[in-house]
Amino acid sequence: MKVNNINYRTIIGSESKNSIQIIDQTELPHKFVLKEIKTLDDVIHSIQRMCVRGAPLIGVTAAYGFAIALKENQCDEFITKVKEKLISARPTAVNLAWAIEAIAGHVKRVAPTKRYGEAWSYAEKLAEEDIQTNQKIGLHGLDLLKSFKKDKLNILTHCNAGWLATVDYGTALSPIYHAAEFEMDIHVWVSETRPRNQGSSLTAWELEQAGIKHTVITDNAAGYLMQKGEVDCVIVGADRISVDGQVVNKIGTYLKAVVAYENNIPFYVAAPKSTIDAKFICDNHPFEIEYRCGSEVSLITGKLADGSVSTVTLTTSPVLNPAFDLTPSKYISNIICEDGIFNPSSLKDLL
Amino acid sequence: MKVNNINYRTIIGSESKNSIQIIDQTELPHKFVLKEIKTLDDVIHSIQRMCVRGAPLIGVTAAYGFAIALKENQCDEFITKVKEKLISARPTAVNLAWAIEAIAGHVKRVAPTKRYGEAWSYAEKLAEEDIQTNQKIGLHGLDLLKSFKKDKLNILTHCNAGWLATVDYGTALSPIYHAAEFEMDIHVWVSETRPRNQGSSLTAWELEQAGIKHTVITDNAAGYLMQKGEVDCVIVGADRISVDGQVVNKIGTYLKAVVAYENNIPFYVAAPKSTIDAKFICDNHPFEIEYRCGSEVSLITGKLADGSVSTVTLTTSPVLNPAFDLTPSKYISNIICEDGIFNPSSLKDLL
Repeated sequence: MKVNNINYRTIIGSESKNSIQIIDQTELPHKFVLKEIKTLDDVIHSIQRMCVRGAPLIGVTAAYGFAIALKENQCDEFITKVKEKLISARPTAVNLAWAIEAIAGHVKRVAPTKRYGEAWSYAEKLAEEDIQTNQKIGLHGLDLLKSFKKDKLNILTHCNAGWLATVDYGTALSPIYHAAEFEMDIHVWVSETRPRNQGSSLTAWELEQAGIKHTVITDNAAGYLMQKGEVDCVIVGADRISVDGQVVNKIGTYLKAVVAYENNIPFYVAAPKSTIDAKFICDNHPFEIEYRCGSEVSLITGKLADGSVSTVTLTTSPVLNPAFDLTPSKYISNIICEDGIFNPSSLKDLL
Repeated sequence: MKVNNINYRTIIGSESKNSIQIIDQTELPHKFVLKEIKTLDDVIHSIQRMCVRGAPLIGVTAAYGFAIALKENQCDEFITKVKEKLISARPTAVNLAWAIEAIAGHVKRVAPTKRYGEAWSYAEKLAEEDIQTNQKIGLHGLDLLKSFKKDKLNILTHCNAGWLATVDYGTALSPIYHAAEFEMDIHVWVSETRPRNQGSSLTAWELEQAGIKHTVITDNAAGYLMQKGEVDCVIVGADRISVDGQVVNKIGTYLKAVVAYENNIPFYVAAPKSTIDAKFICDNHPFEIEYRCGSEVSLITGKLADGSVSTVTLTTSPVLNPAFDLTPSKYISNIICEDGIFNPSSLKDLL
């Protein structure tokens, strides 16, 4: 997608195949900063600090990190260590483990001397596939949006599942970008998404760059707008989807899904098939939610009057910061993936 | 209640009857600042800037403002002007209009020369009555909390309906303060309450001063905690209650109420009878929600590393900032007022 009218992807492998260029998303919306990353440790650090975030992008970044690590050492033992290090970088997004298992499985099938080159090519392939997947999600989602047959559509989204969360196009925002290309009249309610404000910092920034009408609201305001009839549908992404159609996504998704359900508003989850965790069946195997540092709630970063970016303390009280929640399938109208539009109860057919 | 172990009320009339002392709540939790207010315009300004806020406290502050204004001029025409000015200071809290109608009605029944003295006494009486009302709410609420028969209770609250929102004790927090006095083991989930963070800035500060266990969460986390069984009940305040039991309260109340209902968690609204608006019947007379400035969402104030308090810009995107929402009676288990515990469908009996 475009930034100041220049095309970008969130991640690009260097031609010399020994580094990647990422957008440091912790600097947005105040600064657009590109960053070169050259080591495995820096890849892990950038995932943990959320310079790169979003389930699909974490997967691709980790794959590049795996390839970078293999430049030095290609033996099986080392590969196992690298795998473990990367998979434990962030626990929630299944795409990370999925990408690492795929790339490691692939390189183990070739001779050690070829492993580095193969790993790099595989990471590039995953990046390309992510783009194609998201384009397909966008087209299927566009069909859903067209089916409303309304002159103007108000879509609510939570967190950031835009192109910044993927290599390009995004998951939840891909139908919106496709609808805009199709010249539909779209307006997006962007819920701020405390604590890290990915809605107001990333989604609103993306939509502005793309020239799509949008309004930031507090997370608290989503219910009011639904009740008033100001929301035609909700589209969010996902970090992990159980085989029985339950969705782990950014904290606050569950509240919005329940209230959408109460107000008969369709609630869509857009995610690639790789987000479905074949081992995760909610009732038998409950999913552990990631708790992140309380400072994400008690500190916040913004721009001072002099234009400098600073962090201020909001509270010194004790804080609990669950980063994700689980939305039962009952509240989800459809899951949009690269293969089409599915009922959350029929995901088994996709595996 | 106590601040650093010294007893305070949120508002005190001076002995010379020509000024009031308030706590400037916009400075909390970073600074505890007392402020003397001497003119009607400063009273209105302090209500609009939310130096004083909370439906019951707004009512009492306005009554003192009315009295202060009458020191200069006591004629009927002037009284009408003062009434209008005060009632339009903030549109949502019905207690403001209620207090002003009551005090104006009272002084008009006496001779102009006595009006100023009568107004001042009436404002003092309203302040005293508010304290008694809140103590009664606390005792009725305590009965509800005892009825859980649990060793430890986890109570979720939204926004600030503590002593800072009233003259003393609070509405939603009064049962909690009474439970603490009764030595019940209580823990309070304090939802941050974007955009103005009255939860993390005021409620958490109050609870800390009172030595009551509490944890700040993002508004987004409330659903997750309810779903996990970590919330025994929810208690919130109200700005206006319709005769048919629908509750206007801080934006985000509705989301929490719906999800509490879905999880079979009792949802209580604690408010004085003066919060019930006899003219407000939801279906016939829909209530206009107050929209406040978008800068409440896009700017935020906190403490810099050097200890100074500063405001930072979070986003420059367009913002919509509805300040309240309406929770239908279906989602409300009980309304706790000074007369007891009521079903939201039986409020007519109270009027």
